[in-house]
Amino acid sequence: MVEHVDIGNLARRAIERCERLARYSEDPPRVRRTFLSPPTRAVHHTVGQWMAEAGMTVRVDGMGNLIGAFEGAPTAGKPESLPVPFRVLIGSHLDSVPNAGKFDGILGVMLGLAVVEAVRERRLAIGIDVAGFSEEEGVRFATPYLGSKAFVGQVDEAMLGLRDADGVSVAEAVRAFGLDPTLRSAPPEYVAYLEAHIEQGPVLESLDRPIGIVTGISGQSRRRVRFVGRAAHAGTTPMNLRRDALAAAAEWVGRVESSAIGVSGAVATVGSLQVSPGASNVVAGEVTASLDVRHVEDATRVRLCEEILGSGASIARARGLVLEVVGGSEHATVPMDSRLQQTLMRAAGADVPTLASGGGHDAAILAPVIPSCMLFVRSPGGVSHHPDEAVLPGDVERALEVMVRFVERLAADYNPPAAQPRKD
Amino acid sequence: MVEHVDIGNLARRAIERCERLARYSEDPPRVRRTFLSPPTRAVHHTVGQWMAEAGMTVRVDGMGNLIGAFEGAPTAGKPESLPVPFRVLIGSHLDSVPNAGKFDGILGVMLGLAVVEAVRERRLAIGIDVAGFSEEEGVRFATPYLGSKAFVGQVDEAMLGLRDADGVSVAEAVRAFGLDPTLRSAPPEYVAYLEAHIEQGPVLESLDRPIGIVTGISGQSRRRVRFVGRAAHAGTTPMNLRRDALAAAAEWVGRVESSAIGVSGAVATVGSLQVSPGASNVVAGEVTASLDVRHVEDATRVRLCEEILGSGASIARARGLVLEVVGGSEHATVPMDSRLQQTLMRAAGADVPTLASGGGHDAAILAPVIPSCMLFVRSPGGVSHHPDEAVLPGDVERALEVMVRFVERLAADYNPPAAQPRKD
Repeated sequence: MVEHVDIGNLARRAIERCERLARYSEDPPRVRRTFLSPPTRAVHHTVGQWMAEAGMTVRVDGMGNLIGAFEGAPTAGKPESLPVPFRVLIGSHLDSVPNAGKFDGILGVMLGLAVVEAVRERRLAIGIDVAGFSEEEGVRFATPYLGSKAFVGQVDEAMLGLRDADGVSVAEAVRAFGLDPTLRSAPPEYVAYLEAHIEQGPVLESLDRPIGIVTGISGQSRRRVRFVGRAAHAGTTPMNLRRDALAAAAEWVGRVESSAIGVSGAVATVGSLQVSPGASNVVAGEVTASLDVRHVEDATRVRLCEEILGSGASIARARGLVLEVVGGSEHATVPMDSRLQQTLMRAAGADVPTLASGGGHDAAILAPVIPSCMLFVRSPGGVSHHPDEAVLPGDVERALEVMVRFVERLAADYNPPAAQPRKD
Repeated sequence: MVEHVDIGNLARRAIERCERLARYSEDPPRVRRTFLSPPTRAVHHTVGQWMAEAGMTVRVDGMGNLIGAFEGAPTAGKPESLPVPFRVLIGSHLDSVPNAGKFDGILGVMLGLAVVEAVRERRLAIGIDVAGFSEEEGVRFATPYLGSKAFVGQVDEAMLGLRDADGVSVAEAVRAFGLDPTLRSAPPEYVAYLEAHIEQGPVLESLDRPIGIVTGISGQSRRRVRFVGRAAHAGTTPMNLRRDALAAAAEWVGRVESSAIGVSGAVATVGSLQVSPGASNVVAGEVTASLDVRHVEDATRVRLCEEILGSGASIARARGLVLEVVGGSEHATVPMDSRLQQTLMRAAGADVPTLASGGGHDAAILAPVIPSCMLFVRSPGGVSHHPDEAVLPGDVERALEVMVRFVERLAADYNPPAAQPRKD
C-alpha cells in the first residue's frame, strides 16, 4: 500500500520543510523559537498552508497549538461516518531552545503531515490529526509542556499566571498572539498518539540502526546539593588541615559517575557546579552542584539516587564537611503503550531496537490520557540542542514508512460494534 | 634589658591599636582599606601621632608609605654618630582586603612601633625605622606590593600607569592623596628588615606554639587549564558515550590533592572552576579551572606542577578529551636571610618552630635588597582575610619580646671599623 506513493520523496520534503522553518527565528541565523514568539506566527501560517494543501482543516487552539485534521473515509464493511474517537494523533512540538538545531520537535510534526500526504489518496478508515505543540522546551516560562498540557486539559490558573523574564504572563502572551486562553476541561479522545522525534542521543548511531521504538520516558530524580567546608588561604593552609569543598565535590562527582556506570541503563549527571569563593588562591569553602539521575525503572532510579546522595554524605563526613540537599524533584517514568509498541514493531516488519527515552517529550504528557508511542530517529553524533543537529534522509524515510504502516494497521484493526451491517 | 619596660602592656596596646585602626574603613563596620583610600589618611594621621609620641620623626613617601624614624644613640665604645646604614627596618602593610580582619599587616606595624616604645629609654646603638607600607594586598590595582616596591626603588612608569576599576591611575591616585609620585632610584640601606605578621594559616595552632620563624616565602606555580569534552544531553547520552568535561576535571582535582599530599610541605589548590554550559540537564562540554602549587623549594614545586599537569593530560586523553593549559605564571621562592633567622632564634632563647610562608609578604620584595626575616604569630583557627581573624595577647607579647631582643642583639653585634676610637 505504501508503494502507491514515493515515501522517499515525502521524507526528503519533510526534511526540506524542517530546514525552511528553521529560518523563522527570533535570532537568525541561529534557530530560536520560544513560546508564541513572533516567528511562531510565520510557522503557523506556513505549516497551516501545507496542511490545507494536504486536505486538512486547520485550527490554532487557546495555547497556540496548531492542529490539522484529516478526516477518515468510509471503507467497505465500515460505517459511513467514523465515530469521533476513531482518530489517531501524530505530532510533536514547533518551539525550540536557543541556538537550536533544525529537527528537534519539528521533524515529528512534518512527518505527521507527510503521513497524511502519503495516505490522502486512499480511503483509510481512520481520522488523522496532526499536532504542532506550541511549547515543549519550557524556555520562555521555565516550564515545559505548556502546549501539550493545554491540549489534554491540564492548564490551570497558576499556569496561565506564570511570567517570563519581561514579566509577561502566559495568559497575556496568548492574548497578545490573538488567541483566547480559555481553560479546556475535557481531554480529546484518540485511539493513539504517535510522536516521531530525533533521538538526541548516540544510542541508535552506536547500534548502526536508523530508528528505534521507545519503551518509556525515563523518570528523573533531580537534586541540588551543597558541600560546606571552610574557605582558607591556598598558600598557608597545609593539605591535612583543609576542609576543601571542591575536593569533596570532585570526589563525589567521580562517585556519581561510577555509581551510574554500575547500573545498566542508568545515567547520572552533575552538569552544574558553583565554587565559592571561587578564587584561584582560596581553598573552596562551599560548592553547590546539581544532580540528575534517570532510569526507565522508577525503583532503580530512586535507589541509585539514594546511593549517590549517601556517597556524598560519606565523603563530606570523612573530610569534616557537611553535605546539604537543598532542593530537588522526582518525576516517575512514563511507559509507552505496550500494544502500540507492538503495532509499531509489526509496522516496521523487521526487528527494531527498543530504547528508553532519557529526555522528556510531549508524549510524557499525553500518555496518561491517550495511548501513546514514540519512534526515535537516529541522531548523527548524538547531537541535539545545537546547530549541528542533523538527520540522515534514509533514516527519515524509514521512520515515515513505519509511521504510514502504523496508521494503516490502526485503520485495519478498526472493528468496532458499529461495523456490523445495518438492517435499514 | 627587656625587663625595664612592661612588654605585656606594650603588646596589649599594639592589639588595641589594631582594633582602633580597624574603624578607619571604606566600608564600616567591615574593614576595607585599599590603596590610598580616604581612611588611609586617618590611619596615617593616627599612626603618625603615635610615632611622634614615641620620639620618631615621621614622613609619608611618594607611594604613600608611612615611615617613622627613631635615631640610635651613641653608647660606650661606639661612635657619637652612627653611620647611616646602621639602621634596622621593622614593618608591614597598612592596607587591607575587603571584609578583612583587624591584624593582617597592621599588627606588624604596631609591633614595630612597640619595639621603639620598648627601647626608647635605653641608648641602643642602632637606628630603627618603622614602615607602614601603603599597598600589599593589590586590591585596588590588581597588583600587590606597590608600597614595598616603591620603597626599594622598583617603581617604573608602567606601574604608575596601572588603572583601577574607575580608570584612575596609580600616579593620579598618589597625586589626589597630595603626594608626589616621583620615582625613587636608590634603595635604602638597612642592616635588617624584620616583619612580624599573623600566620594566616593553622600550622602554629596545630603545633600549639605562639610564634614561628619564617624560612622563606614559598614560590608559586599558577596555571589556568581547560578540559574540552563534548556537551551532551544528560538524559539521552549513555555513560559510556560521554566526554564529560566535569567528570574529567573532578578526577583531576582528586589527583591534584593526592599529588600534593605526597610531597612534604607542598600545597596545591584548585580554587576556581567554571563549568560550561553549566545546566543541570546537560553533560559539561568544557571546564576551566585554576591551579595554584606552592613549595619552599623551587625545584620541588616545578616538579609537582609538572606532575599535576601530566595527570590532567592523561585523564583527558583516557576520556577522549583534550587538556589545554591556557595561562599561568611562576614565582620563585624568596628565602629569608639565614643569619637573621639565627639571630631571631637566639633572641627567642628557646626553640621556635620554623615554617615556610605560603602567602606573599612585603618581605618578599625587600629581601633581594635588604637582609630580611619574618616572625609569624599564631592565627587562631588559621583564619585570615575574614572578620574572625584574631590574635592571642600572650602570642603578641611573645612576638614583641623576641623582636625587642632581636633589635638589642643587632645593636650589640654592631662592631664596625668606625667603632675604633678616633684619634682627634
